[in-house]
Amino acid sequence: MNEKRIRIGIAGFGTVGCGVAKILFDQKETIQQKTGANLELAKIVDLDITTPRSVDVPEELLSTDIDDIACDESIDIAVVLVGGTTAAKDIQIKMLQSGKNVVTANKALLAKHGAELFSVARENNVCIAFEASCAGGIPIISAIRTGLAANDIERIYGILNGTSNYILTCMEQNGDDFPDVLERAQELGYAEADPTLDINGGDCGHKLAIIASLCFGCEFEFADVTYEGIEKIAITDIECGREMGYSLKLLGVAEKQPCGEYTLQVSPSFVASDEIIAQVPGPFNAVSLFGNCVGHTMYYGRGAGMMPTASAVTADIIEIVSGNSKQLFDNLKLKPREETKPLVADIKDQQKRFYIRIQAKDEPGVLAKMSSALGENGISIRGALQQEAPAQKNYVTVVITTHKTSRNMIDDALKKIDEMNIIAGEPVCIQIVEIPGDEG
Amino acid sequence: MNEKRIRIGIAGFGTVGCGVAKILFDQKETIQQKTGANLELAKIVDLDITTPRSVDVPEELLSTDIDDIACDESIDIAVVLVGGTTAAKDIQIKMLQSGKNVVTANKALLAKHGAELFSVARENNVCIAFEASCAGGIPIISAIRTGLAANDIERIYGILNGTSNYILTCMEQNGDDFPDVLERAQELGYAEADPTLDINGGDCGHKLAIIASLCFGCEFEFADVTYEGIEKIAITDIECGREMGYSLKLLGVAEKQPCGEYTLQVSPSFVASDEIIAQVPGPFNAVSLFGNCVGHTMYYGRGAGMMPTASAVTADIIEIVSGNSKQLFDNLKLKPREETKPLVADIKDQQKRFYIRIQAKDEPGVLAKMSSALGENGISIRGALQQEAPAQKNYVTVVITTHKTSRNMIDDALKKIDEMNIIAGEPVCIQIVEIPGDEG
Repeated sequence: MNEKRIRIGIAGFGTVGCGVAKILFDQKETIQQKTGANLELAKIVDLDITTPRSVDVPEELLSTDIDDIACDESIDIAVVLVGGTTAAKDIQIKMLQSGKNVVTANKALLAKHGAELFSVARENNVCIAFEASCAGGIPIISAIRTGLAANDIERIYGILNGTSNYILTCMEQNGDDFPDVLERAQELGYAEADPTLDINGGDCGHKLAIIASLCFGCEFEFADVTYEGIEKIAITDIECGREMGYSLKLLGVAEKQPCGEYTLQVSPSFVASDEIIAQVPGPFNAVSLFGNCVGHTMYYGRGAGMMPTASAVTADIIEIVSGNSKQLFDNLKLKPREETKPLVADIKDQQKRFYIRIQAKDEPGVLAKMSSALGENGISIRGALQQEAPAQKNYVTVVITTHKTSRNMIDDALKKIDEMNIIAGEPVCIQIVEIPGDEG
Repeated sequence: MNEKRIRIGIAGFGTVGCGVAKILFDQKETIQQKTGANLELAKIVDLDITTPRSVDVPEELLSTDIDDIACDESIDIAVVLVGGTTAAKDIQIKMLQSGKNVVTANKALLAKHGAELFSVARENNVCIAFEASCAGGIPIISAIRTGLAANDIERIYGILNGTSNYILTCMEQNGDDFPDVLERAQELGYAEADPTLDINGGDCGHKLAIIASLCFGCEFEFADVTYEGIEKIAITDIECGREMGYSLKLLGVAEKQPCGEYTLQVSPSFVASDEIIAQVPGPFNAVSLFGNCVGHTMYYGRGAGMMPTASAVTADIIEIVSGNSKQLFDNLKLKPREETKPLVADIKDQQKRFYIRIQAKDEPGVLAKMSSALGENGISIRGALQQEAPAQKNYVTVVITTHKTSRNMIDDALKKIDEMNIIAGEPVCIQIVEIPGDEG
């Protein structure tokens, strides 16, 4: 049988690399049937090739020299699973310049240098496939580019970081404080030893920049995303929010504003508890997209982990082999940065609803003073919750939800309230995201 | 600019046909950018071309003669939006034999004659694209074939009929009875004048057969699906179920059994209220797939309606133009029917949990008699609920949930209970579907 033979090199033999090798070995026949090609793992390069891995690989496949992939003309596809944005960038460029199609899971690199890498790929008539860069096992990149291709996508709401969602879910379910849950998440492997990018919203921001670029057809970068993490979230806010009908999620939101501008934001957000995205538990991710034809669609699954991410990497390999990736890549024409950059609107001017929690002095007239400071800034109150204070305490917790206003207005009002000397500590302000209805 | 020009014919100018025409007109430029081709709506054929439609179409595009598409060699793609399984089949075959790629939304036809149509397509070196046949706007077919291509999919759980889900949601939310809700659904356009196939599980069964064929790689037919509808669902059961922590959904379930057999079943099913699929509201659809690499993924969106379905049809047109559809179709090798038919296992033998509701005589010893009849058949009780009867009534409602057993065992026990003359009316038995955990 005169079958197409495709040789694959993997650069970076970490968790995901092991998963990809495992799939290429275990699912060889199925993949052969689906692609009509014989996929052969030709080389695996890593600086460390001695530490035992979770998959058995013939020793002759292993190398520490990246040129064993780059300079091997018989290798068609380079799977680059190197983290960071410096060495990883050099390696990807080297592979592209050697005429290899590249599969990557590196969202930080794409969100920072995507335009440059895409242009190197085009110059060399190859493609970059990056399904694994966003939301791991969820085939969201493919859905946007093929299944929803007839749609103008107008809004994106994403739970894009499993670590954060795991922590928030545990806090909500068990009433535990952030530091304790983070520690447990690290023990269970749901959080890295250095969890900074996961919990500060940065990782979610990388993914949002990539998804928004594809949905809106613009070259967005990580720098266009305003982001905030969950580090300061107190269990009190999760509990007060729940009492008012909301769940707290770290949400990436990208919207085409009526004026034609775009907003890209990651922040802890309250969403109505009966929204389907509010139900996404533990380490799972979900992406809600609103298209002008299709209305609301949502995609749910694991956002990280060895096998889910390897599943996405392998799907990309299959799509490259079948020629689909190249065709999609060639037709991917994003509006250049010069045109889209100024369109990223000031988040603090956007009209939104907010949740505000204040520790107020337990004395007459305090609520009136607060309400009038908000009223002076044109902020109307939609809901309020005041927990009865234990008799010995001088401060009470007051929670207010507002109608639509801007964060700038809120900040200004909170400054005035602070100056009145009627509150203790920092007021907490969390946005409420109203997922628009889709009544069909 | 020497651009590829693709001419499209639409057979069947109903709601979805109008939606497709609208997208091809309105999104012409976007689609041109995404495909690098100029897509031209060349002809629309329908028996009725005089009734005003929701989209303006130049009169010269309209015809009542199917040969105006079939015999026009300049037309590349035939979008066949004709319902039923007789004329629709003839038209599809004619188009395929004329060398046209076919896009269809007709699930009944595919679930009945898919193998035959696929073979005609192969003989004529063209393809059939059918994203719109299952779950409307949700790109589930594409997800299975591309994004999840590296996975062995083992289980499918789908809410695949928007009408049924709308009715069940209304019953649950408002406590209304089935006939009243059905009437309202018809008034609102969520149910057809003849809603039989929607509410009896048949429509869901068609879609399940198609999705299961793709996931498991076998030529399943509608005849392989055991199905049951929601016509007999009483509001009492929805309420009792909710009290025990379950939501009632019309669920399509297809599973690869440990013995290697497959089960395909549509039935009203209780699922734990905190499962994400239990949250799917109103006319929305959702499909949960479990892959060996990716774990649990779920896809959510509108399963029907003019624009969501037209979005899927247009996505297929775009995929045909880009060559992806043909490639996927050529590599779609389903195990022939002779090999898969006997694998469809007897549903009533499968081990499952059940909900049983009985109107029992309010007298001493009744519960004991019932429990022992169940016990004799090896059925253990997991939960029970007995509502206190109003003093003047002689019967009480008793609800029991069981541990795993088979429907055959349940039926046998219920027969014995019936013979004891201690219950009134028919016992109600509804399966409880436990969506397996995905702990990663």
